[in-house]
Amino acid sequence: MKIAIYGYGNLGRGVESAVRQNPDTELFGVFTRRSPENVTPVFPGTKVFPAADITKYKNDIDVLIICGGSATDLPKMTPSLASDFNVIDSFDTHADIPKHFAAVNEAAKRGGKVAVISVGWDPGMFSLNRLYANAILPDGKDYTFWGKGVSQGHSDAIRRIEGVLDARQYTIPVQAALDSVRAGENPELTTREKHTRLCYVVAAADADKKRIEQEIVAMPKYFSDYDTTVNFISQEELDRDHKGIPHGGFVIRTGSTGAAGENRHVIEYSLKLDSNPEFTASVLVAFARAAYRMSGRGDCGCKTVFDIAPVDLSVKTRDQVIAEML
Amino acid sequence: MKIAIYGYGNLGRGVESAVRQNPDTELFGVFTRRSPENVTPVFPGTKVFPAADITKYKNDIDVLIICGGSATDLPKMTPSLASDFNVIDSFDTHADIPKHFAAVNEAAKRGGKVAVISVGWDPGMFSLNRLYANAILPDGKDYTFWGKGVSQGHSDAIRRIEGVLDARQYTIPVQAALDSVRAGENPELTTREKHTRLCYVVAAADADKKRIEQEIVAMPKYFSDYDTTVNFISQEELDRDHKGIPHGGFVIRTGSTGAAGENRHVIEYSLKLDSNPEFTASVLVAFARAAYRMSGRGDCGCKTVFDIAPVDLSVKTRDQVIAEML
Repeated sequence: MKIAIYGYGNLGRGVESAVRQNPDTELFGVFTRRSPENVTPVFPGTKVFPAADITKYKNDIDVLIICGGSATDLPKMTPSLASDFNVIDSFDTHADIPKHFAAVNEAAKRGGKVAVISVGWDPGMFSLNRLYANAILPDGKDYTFWGKGVSQGHSDAIRRIEGVLDARQYTIPVQAALDSVRAGENPELTTREKHTRLCYVVAAADADKKRIEQEIVAMPKYFSDYDTTVNFISQEELDRDHKGIPHGGFVIRTGSTGAAGENRHVIEYSLKLDSNPEFTASVLVAFARAAYRMSGRGDCGCKTVFDIAPVDLSVKTRDQVIAEML
Repeated sequence: MKIAIYGYGNLGRGVESAVRQNPDTELFGVFTRRSPENVTPVFPGTKVFPAADITKYKNDIDVLIICGGSATDLPKMTPSLASDFNVIDSFDTHADIPKHFAAVNEAAKRGGKVAVISVGWDPGMFSLNRLYANAILPDGKDYTFWGKGVSQGHSDAIRRIEGVLDARQYTIPVQAALDSVRAGENPELTTREKHTRLCYVVAAADADKKRIEQEIVAMPKYFSDYDTTVNFISQEELDRDHKGIPHGGFVIRTGSTGAAGENRHVIEYSLKLDSNPEFTASVLVAFARAAYRMSGRGDCGCKTVFDIAPVDLSVKTRDQVIAEML
């Protein structure tokens, strides 16, 4: 199965590594909107092509993994590529998924290709776990917690404040809230009760740190609804201690069964990830395998993680997974 | 969707309750090998039929949930019923699954019906999580822990010892082992290092408790490879404190990604169940919905949880799950 990467940032680099971990996938190359000569791939053997040339290779690529941003890239890229290629994306603007689905579905059906959108961990593996848990326990309550992990959006928001040179923001689930949910107490949790925000900020030498801290904690939508801690550190400390992109979280459903709902159950799925983009990339490659197989069976149109039979994600045969994993 | 229950023990009673929690399922009735007049269903309105009459109702039942034991019931029941009914079972003898699959597949294909075998939590939800996690992290290591929960097999084994009137055995995961796995230490764990066994035993008044304890802890396969604690209690205490059938466990995969495998990840799925049979029953009903839908689309043959697209488990439509759960 020949995989190509369209868009080459952290996620694309993650796909480049993930493809090498799978015996049935090989990398055709990377397509970038930058000048190819200015792009240094993770592995020296990786070929780099200009994005504008992509359709020249439509018969050479089995699945194209589109590694663009959800805000502006993917709403254009995925529909425009889905009629020529089997594609996977990680579109994660939850509220806009139905609209994105419709646009991609039209293109994929027109071209007779399979597109799988919103693949990753949330949306993606967390979504799957929400669906499975809801199907099993109709009478229950869902909780999703994120972190401990780096939020790029919140880090960027801090960097836009005057006098801030660099910043890293961690989203942290509140342990007491997690404990209450796991104990089956069915708490009603406010935004503030679920997560705290921890910020590491590099300020300019002459900046008013008090003012920066006030601007952060009062920032609507991003911070004002949370208990936020701001730590000022040096650029050296930030680079040394906070250069990773860890993330993770918890999807929990609690519910009851029995004649009178007398028995309680807790279903929990959790991820603890050293590298958010590399893990997301690994999920993308597994679903690329499914897209390739579905396309080979004559299927087409836009799919989500909900539409994929799990067996199609595995490198093993159906007989093998039945014998070894069931 | 009309569901019938074939075999009426704890699991069948769980299905009887679970069907009422789902708006799209109704119970046709219970089929029992006992005399129907001696069976008291959970809900007074539930109809009870003799198992021998089952084929009379082949056009009235959409999915038959077979609630027999894996040792002797299911290897006969499921193949014999799968040509006349869409069926679900919870066959859980892992080593014999391929053989069971082949027998059920032949019958289901012959009758043009859908059969889903080995549905529940292990096999079942734990299997799904093993597959998903392996597909995402090819370079990694799997761990499954069970408990804290009641093992019927081990409880039965104790009851067969001379002088034992009643017994309840709990399987308990070793916290230190769980912690080591979650920390990404990739431990190689012996049987003894993964689980302990805790036994509550009611002994006859004149029984030699020392001898009973020795027989338990030395019992090959069941106890000799574990650190086992034996507590003697009264029948009243057993009935008061240990009448529940809780269970659960943990499926964990740790793995690495990145150019040099430098980033580590932990995927964990866990269940904490007040009632093992009621939770299993709830999983069975969700997969009955999928069997019904697949049959309606003209599919047939034996399926496992690996073959079912998650969307088919949900009471919601595809558009709804995309908009609400993705």
